[in-house]
Amino acid sequence: MGAYKYERLDKNEAALIILDMQEGLYNLVRDFDSVQYRNAMYAHAEIGKIFNLPVIMSTSAETGPNGPLPDEFLELYPNVSVVKRQGEVNAWDNAEFREAVKATNKSQFIVAGIVTDVCTAFLALSLRDAGYSVWANHEASGTTTIDIRENANDRMRDAGVQIVSYFAVLCELMRDWRNTPGAAEIFPVIDRYLPAYGMVARGHRAAVQAGVIQPGESALP
Amino acid sequence: MGAYKYERLDKNEAALIILDMQEGLYNLVRDFDSVQYRNAMYAHAEIGKIFNLPVIMSTSAETGPNGPLPDEFLELYPNVSVVKRQGEVNAWDNAEFREAVKATNKSQFIVAGIVTDVCTAFLALSLRDAGYSVWANHEASGTTTIDIRENANDRMRDAGVQIVSYFAVLCELMRDWRNTPGAAEIFPVIDRYLPAYGMVARGHRAAVQAGVIQPGESALP
Amino acid sequence: MGAYKYERLDKNEAALIILDMQEGLYNLVRDFDSVQYRNAMYAHAEIGKIFNLPVIMSTSAETGPNGPLPDEFLELYPNVSVVKRQGEVNAWDNAEFREAVKATNKSQFIVAGIVTDVCTAFLALSLRDAGYSVWANHEASGTTTIDIRENANDRMRDAGVQIVSYFAVLCELMRDWRNTPGAAEIFPVIDRYLPAYGMVARGHRAAVQAGVIQPGESALP
Amino acid sequence: MGAYKYERLDKNEAALIILDMQEGLYNLVRDFDSVQYRNAMYAHAEIGKIFNLPVIMSTSAETGPNGPLPDEFLELYPNVSVVKRQGEVNAWDNAEFREAVKATNKSQFIVAGIVTDVCTAFLALSLRDAGYSVWANHEASGTTTIDIRENANDRMRDAGVQIVSYFAVLCELMRDWRNTPGAAEIFPVIDRYLPAYGMVARGHRAAVQAGVIQPGESALP
Amino acid sequence: MGAYKYERLDKNEAALIILDMQEGLYNLVRDFDSVQYRNAMYAHAEIGKIFNLPVIMSTSAETGPNGPLPDEFLELYPNVSVVKRQGEVNAWDNAEFREAVKATNKSQFIVAGIVTDVCTAFLALSLRDAGYSVWANHEASGTTTIDIRENANDRMRDAGVQIVSYFAVLCELMRDWRNTPGAAEIFPVIDRYLPAYGMVARGHRAAVQAGVIQPGESALP
Amino acid sequence: MGAYKYERLDKNEAALIILDMQEGLYNLVRDFDSVQYRNAMYAHAEIGKIFNLPVIMSTSAETGPNGPLPDEFLELYPNVSVVKRQGEVNAWDNAEFREAVKATNKSQFIVAGIVTDVCTAFLALSLRDAGYSVWANHEASGTTTIDIRENANDRMRDAGVQIVSYFAVLCELMRDWRNTPGAAEIFPVIDRYLPAYGMVARGHRAAVQAGVIQPGESALP
Amino acid sequence: MGAYKYERLDKNEAALIILDMQEGLYNLVRDFDSVQYRNAMYAHAEIGKIFNLPVIMSTSAETGPNGPLPDEFLELYPNVSVVKRQGEVNAWDNAEFREAVKATNKSQFIVAGIVTDVCTAFLALSLRDAGYSVWANHEASGTTTIDIRENANDRMRDAGVQIVSYFAVLCELMRDWRNTPGAAEIFPVIDRYLPAYGMVARGHRAAVQAGVIQPGESALP
Amino acid sequence: MGAYKYERLDKNEAALIILDMQEGLYNLVRDFDSVQYRNAMYAHAEIGKIFNLPVIMSTSAETGPNGPLPDEFLELYPNVSVVKRQGEVNAWDNAEFREAVKATNKSQFIVAGIVTDVCTAFLALSLRDAGYSVWANHEASGTTTIDIRENANDRMRDAGVQIVSYFAVLCELMRDWRNTPGAAEIFPVIDRYLPAYGMVARGHRAAVQAGVIQPGESALP
Repeated sequence: MGAYKYERLDKNEAALIILDMQEGLYNLVRDFDSVQYRNAMYAHAEIGKIFNLPVIMSTSAETGPNGPLPDEFLELYPNVSVVKRQGEVNAWDNAEFREAVKATNKSQFIVAGIVTDVCTAFLALSLRDAGYSVWANHEASGTTTIDIRENANDRMRDAGVQIVSYFAVLCELMRDWRNTPGAAEIFPVIDRYLPAYGMVARGHRAAVQAGVIQPGESALP
Repeated sequence: MGAYKYERLDKNEAALIILDMQEGLYNLVRDFDSVQYRNAMYAHAEIGKIFNLPVIMSTSAETGPNGPLPDEFLELYPNVSVVKRQGEVNAWDNAEFREAVKATNKSQFIVAGIVTDVCTAFLALSLRDAGYSVWANHEASGTTTIDIRENANDRMRDAGVQIVSYFAVLCELMRDWRNTPGAAEIFPVIDRYLPAYGMVARGHRAAVQAGVIQPGESALP
Repeated sequence: MGAYKYERLDKNEAALIILDMQEGLYNLVRDFDSVQYRNAMYAHAEIGKIFNLPVIMSTSAETGPNGPLPDEFLELYPNVSVVKRQGEVNAWDNAEFREAVKATNKSQFIVAGIVTDVCTAFLALSLRDAGYSVWANHEASGTTTIDIRENANDRMRDAGVQIVSYFAVLCELMRDWRNTPGAAEIFPVIDRYLPAYGMVARGHRAAVQAGVIQPGESALP
Repeated sequence: MGAYKYERLDKNEAALIILDMQEGLYNLVRDFDSVQYRNAMYAHAEIGKIFNLPVIMSTSAETGPNGPLPDEFLELYPNVSVVKRQGEVNAWDNAEFREAVKATNKSQFIVAGIVTDVCTAFLALSLRDAGYSVWANHEASGTTTIDIRENANDRMRDAGVQIVSYFAVLCELMRDWRNTPGAAEIFPVIDRYLPAYGMVARGHRAAVQAGVIQPGESALP
Repeated sequence: MGAYKYERLDKNEAALIILDMQEGLYNLVRDFDSVQYRNAMYAHAEIGKIFNLPVIMSTSAETGPNGPLPDEFLELYPNVSVVKRQGEVNAWDNAEFREAVKATNKSQFIVAGIVTDVCTAFLALSLRDAGYSVWANHEASGTTTIDIRENANDRMRDAGVQIVSYFAVLCELMRDWRNTPGAAEIFPVIDRYLPAYGMVARGHRAAVQAGVIQPGESALP
Repeated sequence: MGAYKYERLDKNEAALIILDMQEGLYNLVRDFDSVQYRNAMYAHAEIGKIFNLPVIMSTSAETGPNGPLPDEFLELYPNVSVVKRQGEVNAWDNAEFREAVKATNKSQFIVAGIVTDVCTAFLALSLRDAGYSVWANHEASGTTTIDIRENANDRMRDAGVQIVSYFAVLCELMRDWRNTPGAAEIFPVIDRYLPAYGMVARGHRAAVQAGVIQPGESALP
Repeated sequence: MGAYKYERLDKNEAALIILDMQEGLYNLVRDFDSVQYRNAMYAHAEIGKIFNLPVIMSTSAETGPNGPLPDEFLELYPNVSVVKRQGEVNAWDNAEFREAVKATNKSQFIVAGIVTDVCTAFLALSLRDAGYSVWANHEASGTTTIDIRENANDRMRDAGVQIVSYFAVLCELMRDWRNTPGAAEIFPVIDRYLPAYGMVARGHRAAVQAGVIQPGESALP
Repeated sequence: MGAYKYERLDKNEAALIILDMQEGLYNLVRDFDSVQYRNAMYAHAEIGKIFNLPVIMSTSAETGPNGPLPDEFLELYPNVSVVKRQGEVNAWDNAEFREAVKATNKSQFIVAGIVTDVCTAFLALSLRDAGYSVWANHEASGTTTIDIRENANDRMRDAGVQIVSYFAVLCELMRDWRNTPGAAEIFPVIDRYLPAYGMVARGHRAAVQAGVIQPGESALP
């Protein structure tokens, strides 16, 4: 097997992009369950907060049908000024957006947006073309059909974009549960956005608490 | 077509049952996406709050692997004492639980729990056998496979249980958006638990707000 | 096998109900492909035109997020006044709607609407309770998940509602291709809304036309 | 809602039927994953052992392509003589089989076999016709396609057969975790055949053991 | 559980109906794989031959887009005259067809056709209404979507139609592998239409033949 | 991550190819819903009109079973002469077709056709081999099964074909909603072919219109 | 986009490999419908006959559970001697097989076999390693799960194997319907193995024949 | 087609890695049936035993919610000391783990673990980066959704990881059924973990045994 260089997300080299996750555009996302996608979208938006990353938010024609970003996003990042594109589909075609990217002084970008095949893919390809490394959080981009999503992800992949899960993003940034942020900061996030893991931790907590009272008691011998 | 009598949920006749939605048992629920199910489970638990219904909560062997109810449920209903079954699988076999049912003085029960084919189905069938009307919120009961869920729902249906969605429960109880609780109380609930509808309302709110400023402006002629 | 009475749709006994197929509510329909459902919704709306049936249109809070009916529907039936419900979820709870039903003087109602588990199901169950026969065009009602749809259809089925396809509605009403409306009127409808059949007819037409010129020429012996 | 009588499995009234689960016929089962079905088949076979129920095993033309029962089944029940049908498809058509049923002196039969639409369904319908109560363990019957399975299960359901999961069978028979057999006997069975639950119990056991050593330590506050 | 009467197919009481399985209409069948459905359609058509049942074949407007029956069907039953409906959608509305049904002097009808929700369902419901027993071979009726098929099957089921697999039809008619037709006649049919079973029989044949030469040799101890 | 060059569709460099979208061949397309695919096929055909691109239409043996192109396509482009291949499967093997490609004087080709694995793939691979850039609109090519489609798309992808959605084609060509064609021309197209987005725009229009009358009124605070 | 060289199947350069399509191994194929796969397997086997290609057949331990090739294959190629591997899993590890490959004097190999991830993949990778061009007919290789198939196909694709449909193989070899073999020889093959296309041709034939008699008559104007 | 070098697993060059297959983490695996995954996990763990390969086992924070490895794994390899990571997510970041890898003195690593997108992928990418060859047994790694799994597998594939089935691992290591380990050692493993194949072998064994007694007897002529 040939040579391979594994570039990992580095919390000192990474920035977060929240792209066109607008309240009107949300209605176009039909490749995920509507609850599952809302969760993924909010989880994505919080990554910057957790790891203290530079954050870029942009919208497309937000006074029209596309609508604004959810208030929750604006409240998360009160100091980030949203790049409001008046017409450019590809955020990279907008000078203010390109400036915002440059201003981060980072080489690694974590992206997600609506819709996967247009907003996310166009930007991801342009970022790659401009020499940046790109991680696409595939759970947080949505579009009208699963077929469209899969082909858009493949197109990005062929351009060298890392198509990764939300949990992979968290863990590549965190690296070690003993770091800061680490277990203490990340487990509450997991409890909020990854309930499959969060409930295991809750069950364990309960067992430990019960264990103090009734050591040795379990259903299995 | 023969005669049919449509019995509707009546907020004055209904009570809510939260059954075995325990942190350990949550791990058995694999017939829904893990985020989607958590949402459905919490949505179910809040129904009593919204419509001020009597609430019965019960757990099965909660100091063992099944674990306790999520704290959020206990905080929602601090005055409800959880019926902690030490061994009975079917809640109806527990005298304290039967007393709690009788004490509600209601004829209609809205149920959901983990797992669908055992905890939910056994209780629903027993309630029907005891002469009660039963609505099973099918989004809020979970089990290990989709096949098992479908057959359990069919079994309950054949016993006269109404297998209904969460939104159907909300709307049968509310009846009219002008009631109390009505639009003012229910739309925030929808925004929390039914984002497919909540985002439509958010998009509309944004359009109305923008409409004040720029009347007549829309993407379509 | 026991006795069974087959009640068929009769174009002289049937009326069409177009329920809450509003532009805002359309966004909640995620149990069908978005193109497929739009087609089904428009096909449903045209049934009244084709067979000259009484038509009832109703909306729920249409100046809010639910939005208005598509203009195309209003243009199809300029003389039908839309029953605009200000708060009642179940159309049957609205006196004007009940009057509209009674005014048709019909015993058979063909219904579809958004969402299946609430608007369609509640009305269908109430119509059955009131003694009417009901056909639910299952392709033209939509909701947020497939699970919710399936359970809503089962609930209606258990109440004696006939859950039927659009093509079944067309054919039960038409009965014979030699009737009026018959092949001459229905095939253009099929070409518009049932392309799987329409293209077979187009291919046949082309073959017949080519056949005149080159009789006997086919790929198979 | 009308009256409903819930008949529950009773370990003193129930018998187990293992029908045509032959090594050759196993190859026809394509409606479940091959590992999942083997597990379900063995789990079904053990039910008799756990609850000390009368067991009837039968095969169809076992020296031909259908093959014999797995040795494991014969070793589980060395004293049960297999009813080897030479030609009857429906086991009920075989006098020795009918005798075996009668000899159990039971009124409730738990059945599963290969294939669902023929062997299982035919026998279940005949048992119902003969006045017996029937529980079909739907996880342990298999056939060539999912469509065939679903329609066969519906056919049985319409005849009053209870279509139930393996876990529902276990729990209806056990009733209370404090019974014998109860938690002590059933949890090892769960660990073997229901790993989704078994691993929760294992995780709990580990947490309790760790809890003794390090009380209060958990990932969540 | 209540009383149930199991009516079984009886080769002396049964007749076969091949309905609108026309070469043009075949293109509408998209709820099964195209190879799988062709196989099911031909398998259905042969049932009459195997059990020497009366056969009724009918077509709808066969000189138009619907096209003729496959030649293979006409060659199977050279003495059956096809009931060519010029306009009636429901075959039962055609006097010649009703006569053909009456002329069989049978009480049990095995039906399948294209499309499930119209041709098959309408006839099946009419036959039930006329007091006949009906078995719908669900593998041999096709339509444009799986949803449409499932709802059509449920509609027939609710009218007392037995929705059964092809193999169930074969086995209810044959009853015992030692009958005529029995193993000798049915296994070649299985090899042709049910390869999942046919290949097991072929593998067994090979093993037996090899067994003669090398007894005792197997991969397992 | 290595270097990547993002080549974007340029409306001055692009031409559209409509390949073998014939009325007979349409029947082979079973990897999409029949309504969804018809919509995608017509949407593809209109791209040339919207952006005033050179258009090449070709058919294979159109007087035989494959049939002609839909009249709608011919009416869209009355001045384009269809390249009628008498035998070549791969359009590139036809000299007239190669001339048509050369005559466009373009370097970027947008292709779709029936069937994906043969007509579309063969041409796309030949165009790539001849040095052209190729965008395959994956929604507008169809074939008999999903497996076949997926493998054909992968084959094209490995040859450097961009596998893109219809909306991605529209947006890469348009670039900016303020261009011509831009929002004014594209939103009516979206309303016709992308109803998931079109209905959001319709809902927004209604809200703006209602907003003029009743500013500030929305379901959410 | 970079350079790409399209190597096409050439009937003068190609040979066919039928690998381990044994009657016992057929039972492991659960990633396709059992009827659909049998059809694909037989279609693959006939390719050599149609285009007069060299054919290599091989089996693995055929006197054991794997069983022999279907007799139909042996009858198709009475002069081809089957390479009976006694132990080598990868056919390329067998000297006789390597000799057979070399003896064809061809550079392009069309392969399929059971199971995809082992027999087919191992050989395809070895052929690529030995410098041959390889086309894997993905419809004619089968294995136990869809996941396993997809990953095996990806593995081969990454090694430069062309993963193609049966119809793509036919058409790359035929090139032009006017060749020999061409329409006259290939349409009967299509009628046998690709009924989705065959029935279109049948419908066309019927329309042409009817056209002679009743020119101009069609359902559409 | 370009050059390709097929590197095969070599039992003298390979080592096995069992990564984070912990009892708590098992609950996160929802992309496979719970029974199917448990089987795959145990099958993976035994590979080292069968081929006498060096084995590395590691866990992440095993006294917390993740839990310990199943006892069965520890009993399989009593002499392997588990690398217990206290915080590192990527096992490669742990010095003891890197030492363990180096100590094997092998160049090929077979990996699987929980969860696919984090534990398995991170390690696999790091091993590739360090110059090792990696085979990921895709059946034995699990995660929360199928989408996440597929993208994680694609990410590894793009890094040169071979994504292979369990059976492919067995067969690449074994090479020839006549080797040691070979048929005698591998068939019992197949019977345990690959029942689709195991039952074919059992059926064959029974047929051979019966063949001795009744040669020539088979269902097919």
